Amino acid sequence: MEKVNLNQKFGLFNEYWSPKIAGELNGQQVKLAKLHGEFVWHKHDAEDELFFVTKGTLKMEFRDKTITIEENEFLIVPRGVEHRPVAIEEVWLMLFEPASTLNTGDTASDLTKNELDWI
Amino acid sequence: MEKVNLNQKFGLFNEYWSPKIAGELNGQQVKLAKLHGEFVWHKHDAEDELFFVTKGTLKMEFRDKTITIEENEFLIVPRGVEHRPVAIEEVWLMLFEPASTLNTGDTASDLTKNELDWI
Repeated sequence: MEKVNLNQKFGLFNEYWSPKIAGELNGQQVKLAKLHGEFVWHKHDAEDELFFVTKGTLKMEFRDKTITIEENEFLIVPRGVEHRPVAIEEVWLMLFEPASTLNTGDTASDLTKNELDWI
Repeated sequence: MEKVNLNQKFGLFNEYWSPKIAGELNGQQVKLAKLHGEFVWHKHDAEDELFFVTKGTLKMEFRDKTITIEENEFLIVPRGVEHRPVAIEEVWLMLFEPASTLNTGDTASDLTKNELDWI
């Protein structure tokens, strides 16, 4: 049992769109990711996803609107809802979601990460 | 679907040891709590619990050690492990745990909250 310091963990990697696992509980995982640019449109058929921004501004695009998530804010995207994260400048993100969640959901992409590393 | 701003939510209540529900996903809940003083020793037999400190310093006591959690750090306490949160000064805490989790676990106390409000 060890505590996790977010800034220390974010200092360990620089790749964008490559979530790292920072914790696991009750079948869910805590993942840390750095984002920059536009991701792919996708949805998760069976998983709700929580996006907590610790640095920067994340624009979460939906088909009918965009929600802007600032530092110290979170958004829960329910299962089945198409979304696309856009980070005009670098964003540091903490995710809570089931361990089974694939980053690109139902959209196969060069950005798809099938195996995530622990950090 | 609405984003949650932690500081705005923490501004809405002042009670200590009274978690409020700020989000729900995959059978889990995000809870916000303000802590001050010493809580009761307890454990959760079937639930792991994540403690993320957004303000202040939380001392998590275990039977054999104490882990100090600072702002922007989290600790996952596995099910079955006795623990006691201690906040010498006010702490703002975000919890991530199953919706079924009772704040005092297996210890009935005046601090037990059977019904939590959404915030």
